Amino acid sequence: MAQPEPPVFTGLFSVNGATRLYGTIGDPIRQLRMTGIMPQVFAAVGANAVWLPFEGGAPLLQLMLDGLRGKLRNLAGFTVTIPHKTAILPLLDRVSPRAQAAGSVNMVKRDGAQLVGDIGDGLGFVRGLEAAGHRVHGASVWLVGLGGVGGAIAAALCEAGVGRLLVTELDDARADAAVARLSKFYPNVPVANVDMPPKGIHYAINATPLGLRPNDPLPFDPMMLAPEVLVAEVIMSPAETPLLQRARTHGRRIHHGRHTLDHQVPIYLDWFGIDAKGIDIVRLVRSIP
Amino acid sequence: MAQPEPPVFTGLFSVNGATRLYGTIGDPIRQLRMTGIMPQVFAAVGANAVWLPFEGGAPLLQLMLDGLRGKLRNLAGFTVTIPHKTAILPLLDRVSPRAQAAGSVNMVKRDGAQLVGDIGDGLGFVRGLEAAGHRVHGASVWLVGLGGVGGAIAAALCEAGVGRLLVTELDDARADAAVARLSKFYPNVPVANVDMPPKGIHYAINATPLGLRPNDPLPFDPMMLAPEVLVAEVIMSPAETPLLQRARTHGRRIHHGRHTLDHQVPIYLDWFGIDAKGIDIVRLVRSIP
Repeated sequence: MAQPEPPVFTGLFSVNGATRLYGTIGDPIRQLRMTGIMPQVFAAVGANAVWLPFEGGAPLLQLMLDGLRGKLRNLAGFTVTIPHKTAILPLLDRVSPRAQAAGSVNMVKRDGAQLVGDIGDGLGFVRGLEAAGHRVHGASVWLVGLGGVGGAIAAALCEAGVGRLLVTELDDARADAAVARLSKFYPNVPVANVDMPPKGIHYAINATPLGLRPNDPLPFDPMMLAPEVLVAEVIMSPAETPLLQRARTHGRRIHHGRHTLDHQVPIYLDWFGIDAKGIDIVRLVRSIP
Repeated sequence: MAQPEPPVFTGLFSVNGATRLYGTIGDPIRQLRMTGIMPQVFAAVGANAVWLPFEGGAPLLQLMLDGLRGKLRNLAGFTVTIPHKTAILPLLDRVSPRAQAAGSVNMVKRDGAQLVGDIGDGLGFVRGLEAAGHRVHGASVWLVGLGGVGGAIAAALCEAGVGRLLVTELDDARADAAVARLSKFYPNVPVANVDMPPKGIHYAINATPLGLRPNDPLPFDPMMLAPEVLVAEVIMSPAETPLLQRARTHGRRIHHGRHTLDHQVPIYLDWFGIDAKGIDIVRLVRSIP
C-alpha cells in the first residue's frame, strides 16, 4: 500500500499555549540539527510540538530530569548529546539493556512515575545499513572507535545479531570497558579487540571523529581492506569524508553518515510515542537538506 | 522621523541551535497569548528567540530560577502569570519598588549574578491610557479590584503620580495589605478604600475578573458615575465587556483592555534588553488579531 505523501513544509512553524516541548540537551548545542528537522516531522504527523536546544553543563541534567518528572508539565521528553550521554545514564530510573551495553543514553522520557532512557544512535546506524541493503545479522563487522557513538553502534550491532564484532580503540581502558559491557549483555556475540585492519569482514565502520576537520588523518586506510568490504561512516558533515572519498574513488562500496540521521528520526517518534500516521518519515527526513 | 515599517510576518518562525529561549510560566498555560505575538515581534526586530509556554505548579518556580541562574544557559528570561506572580517575588534576589508595591512580579531575568524581577502589567495599562490621550499624572482614579492585576495597576498609577487613588476591593485583608504596600512605597499619593462609586474622579477602572464570563455581574454600574468619567477595562477577552458596552451605549468614554497588551510588549523588550530597532512595536502588536 502506498504511503501518503508528506505535506509540503516551509521549515517554519508556530507555537501556542498547548504546544508540547521536546528538545536536545548538550553543551555546546549550537550545532544542533534536529531543530531544522523535527518541526517538519511534527507538522507532517500533526503533532503540536516544538524541538528546542537546551544548553548547559552537568547541572542541566538534574534540572531537566526534575522538569520531566513533572515540574515542567509540558516538557514531553528530550534527547541527549555531547557531553551528557554517559553522565545521564545513572540518573535514570530505568535504562534499556542496549543503552547499558552502550554505556550511554540519548533518549529520555517519562514512563508513568519513572524516568527511562535508551540509546538510538546505534540503532539508527543499523537500520540505515539494512535499508541500504546491507544485511547485519550474521555479518562480520570491524568497528573503529568506541567512544559514545562507537559504543552505541557496537551495542546495536550485537543486538541485531552480528556474527562477529572486531573493534579498534586507541584508549585501552575505554576499549576494555566497552568489550566487557558488550560481553555481559550479548554473550553470544564474539567481540574482540584488533589492531590492524582485519581479514574476513563485511563492513568497516568509522566511529571516530576523524574526518570532521579537513586536516584530520584517515581513521584507517580503506585500501588495506579487501575490495568487497563496505566502508561506512558515522560523520554527517562533511557529507563525504576523506575516508569515503578515498574508498569511493578507488571503486569501493561506501555508506554515508547521513543514513543514520534519516533513520534516527522514526526511532525518536517511536520512543516518544508520537504516531507517524503512516508517513514515510525516512523519506521526509531525507528530503531535508 | 518616520519609523520603519515592520516586515510582513506569517505567524510562523524557525528555531536553531543558537535560538534563545523566552516564555511564560503559569498553571494552566494553554490560554497564553504571547506565543502568537512574540514570534512576530522577534522576527520584526531580528532576534533569534522563541517564546514558549512553561506549565507547572509551585515546584516550577525554583526549577526555572535555577535554569535562569545558569543551569539552562540559553534560557534568557521569562514572564509570570497566574498563579505564580506573588509566590515568585520572595524567591528573587532583587525586585523593583514597583513590584514590591504591587506585591507581584511578572517579569524575571538575570542581571549579572542576580535574579531580578519587575511588574509590567500596571505599567502597560498606564502607558495604554496615556497613549490614548488620558493624562495620568495628577488624575483622580477609582480602581475596582486589588488582586494581581489591580495591585499592579495601583502601583503603576502611584508611580506615574496620580493625584488621588481610590480603591474598592471586597476582600478586606487584601485591600488593607495593598493599601499598606502602596502607602509605604508611594507616601505622597493619597490612597483610600471606598465602598461606593466616588465623586470627583477622572477614571474608573475595572481590575476584577468580572466580565470574563458572559453571565458575570457588572463590577460596577458605569451609570452611577458622572458623565465625564472614563470607564477603563483590564479584560481583553471579550474585547468589549458588558461594562464597556453599557458605558459606550450610554455615551460614556471607554478604554478597552487590549491597550494594555499592546503596550506591554515594548515593556518586555526593554526588560529583556532586546533592541526594538526603532520599530513601532505597539503598532505591530495592535495589527495582530
